[in-house]
Order: sequence, then structure tokens, then C-alpha cells
Amino acid sequence: MSSVVRPRPGAAVTLSPGAGGRIGGGFWAARQRVNREVTIPLGGRRVRESGAFDNLRLTGEHRGKVFADSDVYKWLEALAWERGRAESDDLAGPYKEAAELVAAAQCPDGYLHTHTQLTGRARYSDLASSHELYCAGHLMQAAVAGSRAVGDRTLLGVATRFADHLVKDLPKDALDGHPEVETGLVELYRETGTRSYLDLAARMITGRGHERLPLKGHHGPGIRQDRVPLREADAVEGHAVRAMYLAAGAADVAAETADQALMEALERQWLDMVATRTYLTGGLGSVWYGEQFGGPHELAPETAYCETCAAVGSVQWAWRMLLATGAARYADLMERTLHNAVLPGISLDGDRFFYVNALRVRAGANPDDRRAAARGRQDWYGTACCPPNVMRLLSSLDHYLATHDDQGVQLHLYASGTIRAGEALLEVETDYPWDGRVEITVREAPSRPWTLSVRIPAWADGAGVSLQGGAGLRADPDAVPADGAAVPGAYHRIRRTWRAGDRIILDLGVRPRLTAAVPRLDVARGQVAVERGPLVYCLEQADHPGVIVDDLCVAGADLRDGTAVPGLPAEVVPVTARGRAHVHREEDGGFPYRTAAAPREWEHGGPVDLTFVPYYAWANRQVGPMTVWVPMH
Amino acid sequence: MSSVVRPRPGAAVTLSPGAGGRIGGGFWAARQRVNREVTIPLGGRRVRESGAFDNLRLTGEHRGKVFADSDVYKWLEALAWERGRAESDDLAGPYKEAAELVAAAQCPDGYLHTHTQLTGRARYSDLASSHELYCAGHLMQAAVAGSRAVGDRTLLGVATRFADHLVKDLPKDALDGHPEVETGLVELYRETGTRSYLDLAARMITGRGHERLPLKGHHGPGIRQDRVPLREADAVEGHAVRAMYLAAGAADVAAETADQALMEALERQWLDMVATRTYLTGGLGSVWYGEQFGGPHELAPETAYCETCAAVGSVQWAWRMLLATGAARYADLMERTLHNAVLPGISLDGDRFFYVNALRVRAGANPDDRRAAARGRQDWYGTACCPPNVMRLLSSLDHYLATHDDQGVQLHLYASGTIRAGEALLEVETDYPWDGRVEITVREAPSRPWTLSVRIPAWADGAGVSLQGGAGLRADPDAVPADGAAVPGAYHRIRRTWRAGDRIILDLGVRPRLTAAVPRLDVARGQVAVERGPLVYCLEQADHPGVIVDDLCVAGADLRDGTAVPGLPAEVVPVTARGRAHVHREEDGGFPYRTAAAPREWEHGGPVDLTFVPYYAWANRQVGPMTVWVPMH
Repeated sequence: MSSVVRPRPGAAVTLSPGAGGRIGGGFWAARQRVNREVTIPLGGRRVRESGAFDNLRLTGEHRGKVFADSDVYKWLEALAWERGRAESDDLAGPYKEAAELVAAAQCPDGYLHTHTQLTGRARYSDLASSHELYCAGHLMQAAVAGSRAVGDRTLLGVATRFADHLVKDLPKDALDGHPEVETGLVELYRETGTRSYLDLAARMITGRGHERLPLKGHHGPGIRQDRVPLREADAVEGHAVRAMYLAAGAADVAAETADQALMEALERQWLDMVATRTYLTGGLGSVWYGEQFGGPHELAPETAYCETCAAVGSVQWAWRMLLATGAARYADLMERTLHNAVLPGISLDGDRFFYVNALRVRAGANPDDRRAAARGRQDWYGTACCPPNVMRLLSSLDHYLATHDDQGVQLHLYASGTIRAGEALLEVETDYPWDGRVEITVREAPSRPWTLSVRIPAWADGAGVSLQGGAGLRADPDAVPADGAAVPGAYHRIRRTWRAGDRIILDLGVRPRLTAAVPRLDVARGQVAVERGPLVYCLEQADHPGVIVDDLCVAGADLRDGTAVPGLPAEVVPVTARGRAHVHREEDGGFPYRTAAAPREWEHGGPVDLTFVPYYAWANRQVGPMTVWVPMH
Repeated sequence: MSSVVRPRPGAAVTLSPGAGGRIGGGFWAARQRVNREVTIPLGGRRVRESGAFDNLRLTGEHRGKVFADSDVYKWLEALAWERGRAESDDLAGPYKEAAELVAAAQCPDGYLHTHTQLTGRARYSDLASSHELYCAGHLMQAAVAGSRAVGDRTLLGVATRFADHLVKDLPKDALDGHPEVETGLVELYRETGTRSYLDLAARMITGRGHERLPLKGHHGPGIRQDRVPLREADAVEGHAVRAMYLAAGAADVAAETADQALMEALERQWLDMVATRTYLTGGLGSVWYGEQFGGPHELAPETAYCETCAAVGSVQWAWRMLLATGAARYADLMERTLHNAVLPGISLDGDRFFYVNALRVRAGANPDDRRAAARGRQDWYGTACCPPNVMRLLSSLDHYLATHDDQGVQLHLYASGTIRAGEALLEVETDYPWDGRVEITVREAPSRPWTLSVRIPAWADGAGVSLQGGAGLRADPDAVPADGAAVPGAYHRIRRTWRAGDRIILDLGVRPRLTAAVPRLDVARGQVAVERGPLVYCLEQADHPGVIVDDLCVAGADLRDGTAVPGLPAEVVPVTARGRAHVHREEDGGFPYRTAAAPREWEHGGPVDLTFVPYYAWANRQVGPMTVWVPMH
């Protein structure tokens, strides 16, 4: 079969509606429906209200942030993918209007950045802050989406003219303080075949890390990933979103140029990030100051930054690493991040957004503390990077379900729908993530052996795979391996001559489980979290009247699926556990420290029934105390 | 005897070298010597280099921050108190030069703020940010110090002209975004008797909390203590330094106007602050964003802000509450804060400074992370509020040792030296805080009964008081109480007719002890800290070669005084304990979370000898991992 993506170092990376999956129902379909019907239209109104469309008209004062153009581009990208999923006048009309505005705003020589154009500031004179190339990168991604999804070449023309200008006129050694154009350039290269775009991206990847960007504020060069060359770095550092976008662009460059050393450096950094700087949710960035990564195992739940955009960027990076290496760990993190770090960024109704995603909110937080997650999701943000980032990811999520190559088909994420992979057509039925049973039916298949690879998540202890079903499934003495137990954290590969009607049943064993952290992760010491399948759970105040979430602890390892939680959609499966509440006493005149021969014991009141709900669904009923990590005694 | 201070609601509060103590030797004398010989001269050079003196010449562009004038004023205040301790040409010369610069910069109508004068910005047009009155307050404090300490009236004239201008011309309802002028006005009232200064301060205290200040940035009105009127508030909130300065000014107003309701509100807020928002060190402010207080029990050690200035402000507030109420808890917090939150702000050599005081630094912190305490103390700061704040506090520390009133003399802090209290003269000899024995000898006394009150710190379980010594101590059947055991956290009061030569021996039982926190203080769960007397201790990497501080835990409650630590002054008493080091393994592909029926157990290597050193002395040898809280297993 043809190779749309090649999961080896040096492989091309692409999202294309002509290949991969198509989500047809279930968990993600519901999120996509809300995205299409509520969030994207609302996004258009908010972007318009922000003045970003007015900026593109190049009249009056520039409004909003220097990167306001990128809000338009990301929203356009979401529209494009969404049109590709199902064309509609409600989408095509706004797309056309905005795309034409963008085209009209472009300078004759290809340059486009309304803040620079409206303020008259010299081009590229403050690249550390101006976001000129950052916006260009988002324009390129939107243009590629428009071209691939619906064959619309309006933005592709704008993007190629801009890219041609950059290739010709961008000062040598120029870098943008906020990476993004690198991956945009490589995608544009893939779409157009213009090699100079790839070369420019490669030049920027290699040029970074030499302290060329001027320093801003109190930060050092690391905040903009300009301290250490990527090929030499052992760890991600600095602003988390920038780090993710840069790494995604570097993975693109490494794949397209078969740069093994760069790919190995990226793998080293990714492994360190996962081992030392990733929240249980997949969220990234533990430091508010600079929106950046902290030290190793510095993962305080309350002050977690976990910007929604960083989660989107993490998915992009992991996807590229997955395609380049085929290693299941990348898909594992993608799944974790999608469910628990991207999805919390948007309300269940699709109309409110978290920019920062704390893993804990305590009781009594000052209502005036603008930092607090306790304020709940917001209608929009002055820096509105996150909402349209979620929109474009949800609209393009189908493409992340599966890949195929000359060996066969690889299923990475599970959702009801279809997988078109060359000559093969698969149908997937599942109530995942609520249920661990995934039925994969072969609807069409070439008449030669090929490998179906299904990812067994790392948490899926005891997962099983069986072949069964219709008349189409016949004994195949060459099949490797036989059905049976599957190894978590790896792809279970079955090579055989598949026929229409063959059916594979995965049992991923979605059951509630307790999770603990290594002791070096100090803020989780003595505590546990509840997970169920790919979902991280939390305790919310709404489900625990009469006690304060801060005082709750888990009293036993016996977790059970609960019944529907009032105020949450009926399909949401809560988890129940036995718990107790600490009796808080003010002693020693209220000073919370006292002489003790050992850590302070918990004085408990009576038993408390604990109800854990999925973290992504928190703050949809009332906004109050919440915690992912819970002490266990 | 005459009443210099009256420890009752409505009492005046004053620092005056004519009364109170005189530090003559020991722990604080050494810090004061470094302050006088190193820090204050260095401060003069740094302030000069910053351009703050040039600003006062009113030529050229304004240099530095809008509050640059206050650096000069705080440094002048330190010079004044220091001159009062011992006059010297090396101090008087620079004082005269700077004070005359200040006087020459004043506008004919009394206004003085070089940023406004040099930029031409309209006076009082941006009080939320301009710090005009903040600087005025520091000028007033410096002026009062000059007048009281050495009778220099140069600055007093400037300050009174400024205050007269404010009384006459400051727009009604005007508030400064950064409180400070309130306490300055009350002090100026005390020094001059001009009632209108007190009235203006009272107006500002009452006027705050009505959302009159325009909002700035993402913050709400609480960041500037303008959300809730002080009389109604239950908790401190917002920017910690501002909160402390405002509370100190409010306590001044409450004392001078006998405003019982205001004093009760302050007491309520102070108790809540101590119970829920105070680090073990006495440090305040757990949130970097806005340098502010966090929620209740939000006291993460690593991201502690604990600005040195907030500790100085806390001492000022507690002192005023102590004088107004006589309650020992205020002196307890002052002592804790002085040793563990003010003193860490300056290096042992006196030439480097911490602005932020973290209670934990982990291994592997990014060397480029400008937020990290791991960068160590700095030579100076662009916002240089903290260093001169420590200077002026150390230079005026003598005045905080003791008070006297018509009942007798109250000893609050212990240092070798003398206490002059009306007709009484006491001599104190002690090696406190290294040793708990404090000998107080009566050198002069009026021939009538009076009460000597000695503070027994809250931590001093088993403290004893005995009367003994020279021929002067005679049986006094009216003495109350007899010597013997003393109650911690209270003043031990002995009323008798004292005679010269009488001697009181305090044994405060300075021994190392373990301290634990209430469970609601989540970041200290399962952990202990080491304290010894008033000192909080920490583990530093320098004393634990071959293991990482992050992996250490305390393995037993048997603490001992250690021998001198290499690289620290010989008088520093370390504390030793049995410990173990966790063996850190990367498992599950490095992902630090795994399914577990309980919190992750620690896997230990062999025993490790732990050496705890005083927290104030950390980062004086090498800057590396450090922690105050240590797990205990």
C-alpha cells in the first residue's frame, strides 16, 4: 500500500484528510460537535471583537497584542479542517471573508504582520518580541490546512508569497523569540515542494541556542530556547509553548532531512521531559514567571501553569516523534495530554476557556487572586492563543487516529469511526474511554498479508486482544502473533492476510486505579491520584458537601465505578472510594507549626464517600476547591 | 517611671535611642558591625551608581525606578540610626551630603519626587503606580530617625514641608498604590506634634478598600489592599510588602486615635496571617505573580516569595501590635522573622542580598532560571528596596529589645548589652541564640517595686527563671511570682523592689527540636523541619557530598548539636541527625507515575549523617540544593 506517512527517521509528517481516521461517534465526536457548533462560531465573534479583523483592514490603530494576527490564522485553520470534515456554508462563508482579508493585507513583497504595518515599526527590528515569524508560521499552517482539507488556495498563495519573501529578504541569522515558523515552513514545503522553505527552517533550528536573541526583562536566553543548541541540549527549558513549537519544528526538520543526530537529541529531551517535567495530566510548565518549565520534578499542583497551548504543542511534538520512530510512548503521551491537558482548556459547553490548568485549588482562595484557577474558565483572553489552538486541534483530531505505511496500519488513538488506509478500510466501534472494549472490523482489505498494529496503553495491565466475529475471519496459519495477552506500552502487531469482515476485539481493561509518583516528586509524596483508562480524575468540592476537599484523604484502595454525577453528562463515569476527612484544629495560638517527634498525624472524623470525576470535566458545575493528588492514610 | 511607650491600645509607638536597649555583643552585634562597616558604605556606592543621587540633582533623564528616591531615604535612615549608635565622620559626611541633596531637590511648595519632577508628569496623576507618597513616607521615616538619633533637622524640615503640602494640596481621597506614607505621617506627627499629619494618615487608612485605585495589569483591587476596608477585612491580601506597610500604618493610627475597632480588625487579620499564610521562617508571600499572599496554607517552600522587605514590614507591624497589646505572640513572630526571614536577605559578609527567600532549592535547577534562589544572593537589584531595608532595620534593632511603662520593664528580644528604662538600668549577658542562658543584672533601679517582664518564647518548653547572684539580691516577701518554671509564649513577670546587683537567670532551653505542620499545610505533609531556639535550620548540599539533598530524609528524632561547620563562622551551631537517602530509579520508561495501591514507598540506601545549618546562613559557601522541610521515614 502507498505510504502517506513513513514512521521512520527521515519520514515526512503530514496531516491529511485523505488518509487516517474519521471520527464518527462517541467521546471525541461529541467534543467535535460542540467545537463545530459552539466554539468555532464563538471564536469568530471573539476574534472580531478583539479587533484582529480590523487590524487586517490596515486602518486605524493596531488593536490587541502584537500576535493578534495569529488568532485569526488559528481560527482559520480550525475552519479549514472543519470544512474538510463536512463542508458547510456556515463555515465556508466566514472562511472566505477572513481569508480574503488576510490576502488583501499582504504587502506587495509578501510581508504580512499587521502590528508592524500599522505601527510603522521597522520589520524584524525586534524579533525577540514582535512575533512576526510566529504569526507567519500560523499563517502557513492555516494555509496548508485550507489546501489539504478543501483545496482552497487563497491562504496558500499568501503563505508562499510570505515564505518566498522570507527566503529572500529575512536577515541572515534572524530568529523569532517565539518559535512556530519552523514547523510552518516545513509543512509548507511538504505542501508545495519548495525546498528553500525547508532549508530556511533548518537554518533556524541550527541557528538557535547561541544567545543571538536580545534578552528581555529578567529572563536569560533559556526562556526563548536560545541558551543551548538543540542538538546539544539534554532537557527542555524556558517558555513551555515555545519549547514545544520549536521541538515540533525541529522534529519536522530532522524527519525531512534525515538528521539522525537531531532526532536523537529530541528523543533525549523528550524522555527527560516526560521523566522529570510532566504533570500526571500531561500538562507542561510549572512556573508562572515566564510561563516556563521548572526544575526536575518541580511539579507543584497548585501553581501548575500547564498552559493549554503547551499541551497542544506537546501533542504536535509527540505526533512527529511517533511518526519518526513508531514508539508507542509518544502516542501514550498524546492520549494522556489530549484527555487531561488539552480538553480541560475548554468547558463542556464549549464556550469558556482555561489558559492555565491547575491541578489543585484550595479552599478559601482569595476571590481577588487573578492567578487562581478558582476564578474558573473565562469567556476569552486578552492573549487569546489557547482557545483557537484547541479549536484547530479538535477539528484535526481525526488525522491523529491512525497511520499507515508499507507494513500496514497503525492505530494510535481509539474512537468510533473509520480508518481509511490505502486499500484498507477499518471500522472502529467503542465507548472508549468510558469502556475499554474496542471492536475493529476490517471492511476492505488488499489480498496480501499486512500488519495491523494496535496500541496497548502503558496503563493497560492485563489487556487482551482477540480475533473473532463474522464469516470473514478464517484461520490463518501465518498470523503473527496469535490473539491473547498484550504488552502494555507497545503496539500489538498482528500480521495476516486480512479479509473483509475480520474483527479484532481489544479489551484495554478500563478500570479505576490508584497512581503514585516517585518520591523525588516531592509535592505528591504520601499521596495518590485516581485514573481510569486514559483519564486522570480529581476530587471536586461540588461532590463533597459538608467537608472541605483540602481535608479529604483516601482511606482504602477499593475503587469502584460510580453512577452518574448530578450536573455532568450522563456518560461520564465517576469513581468512588472510601475516604476520611481530617479534623482541622487551630492550635498553638493558630501558628500551624509545632514541636513534634514526627510528621503531624492526621486526626480523622467519620468516613466520607469520595467521588472522583474526570479532571477535564472539573469546574463545569461550580468553581471551587479541587485536587488531583489526595493523601492516603 | 516615665512612659516612653505605652503598651495599650491608644499608646504612642516610637523608636528612640534615648530609651530601650543597646546591643553590646554577641549574635546581633556581629551583624550590626558588618552592617556598619560593609553594608551601609556599599549601599551608598550602589545607590550612587544607580543614579538616585543624580536624580536628586534634577538634571538629565530620571534614572532607575519611579521609587528610586526611596532607596536614598532608607539608606539615610540607616545612616541616621547608625550615627545614633556611635557618631562617626564616615557616617556623618555622607549623611550630610545626601540630606542636603534631598533638601535642595524639594519644590518650593514642599513637593518632592524626582521621577515626577524630571519627567514632567502631573503630580498625583498615577498614584496607583507612581510611588510618590510611598517615597514621601520613607522620607518621613528617615527624617524622624535623623531627628531622634542625632538631632539632625535637615530632613525633618524637608519632611514637614512635604507633609504640610500634602495636608493642604493632596487631592481628597488620594491613595498611593504602595502604602508607606501612613506610618511615616504618624511618626512625623509623633516627632512634631502636628495633628494634621495624623489626621491625613487616618483618612488614608479609612479611605482604603473602596476600589478607588485604578486597576493595573491583570490584578484586582486586592493586590493593593483596595478591595475591602481594613476595618472589615478578616485576612491580609495582595502584595505582601504593601499589606505589611499598610497594617503598620493602620496600627499607628489605631494606637494614636485609640481606635479600638481598627485595632481589633488588625489583630484578627494578624492572627489569620500567622495561622494560615506565614512560612515557618516568618516569611510572607507565597505567590510570585504580584509578590502576594496566596490562599490559606498555600505555603510552598520552593516557590516561596518571602520578600525580604515583607519580613521587615512584618517586624514593623508586629512591633506596633506588641506595643498596643503587650501580647507575647507579637514578639515571638518578630524574633522568628528577624532571625529567619530578614537575616537570610543578606550574606554573612554583608555584601550580597536575597530579594526572594525560597525555603527549598532542588537539584538540577536550570542555571538560566532567573527566578531560582539557586542563583544565590546578588550584588544589588534594579528594584533595590530590600538591601537598604535590612540596613535600616539592623541599625535600629537596639530599640526593639525592650520597652518600659509605668508598671516596669519588658524584655522582648535577647542580646548582650544594656537596657536603659527610665531610672532602671539592666545589663544583659547571653550567647543567645546559640545558648539559652540569659543573665540579666540590675545595675540601677528606683527604690520602689516594679515589674520585670521577660518573654518566654513559645518554643521554650521547660524554660526556667531563677533569681540569684550578687549581694544585691535579697529576699523580697512581696515578690510575685517566685522563680521557677515559666510558661512558654508569655511574659514571665516578677514584681519586686529591685536593687542594683540583683540578677535574673533565664534558661530558655535552646536545644534542637523537630517541628511539624498541620496537615492542611499540604506541602509539609509527612515532613519535619529542624529548629533550635529561634532559628530555623535547613539541609544544604554543601554538607552532604555524594548524595542529593532532594533524596534525603530524617530517620530518627535524635537530634544533637554538632561541631563547627567548615566554611561557616565558628560560633554557628549545626544540628546533626540520622538520615537516609532515597534511591531514585527511573521506571516505567521514565514516566514518574505508576499504578500503585498506596503512595510510593521510599527505597533507601545506607544511612547518611545529616547536618542541618541555620537557614539564615545558607548560600554563603556554595549555592546549591537546600531544603527546610525534610521527609521523615
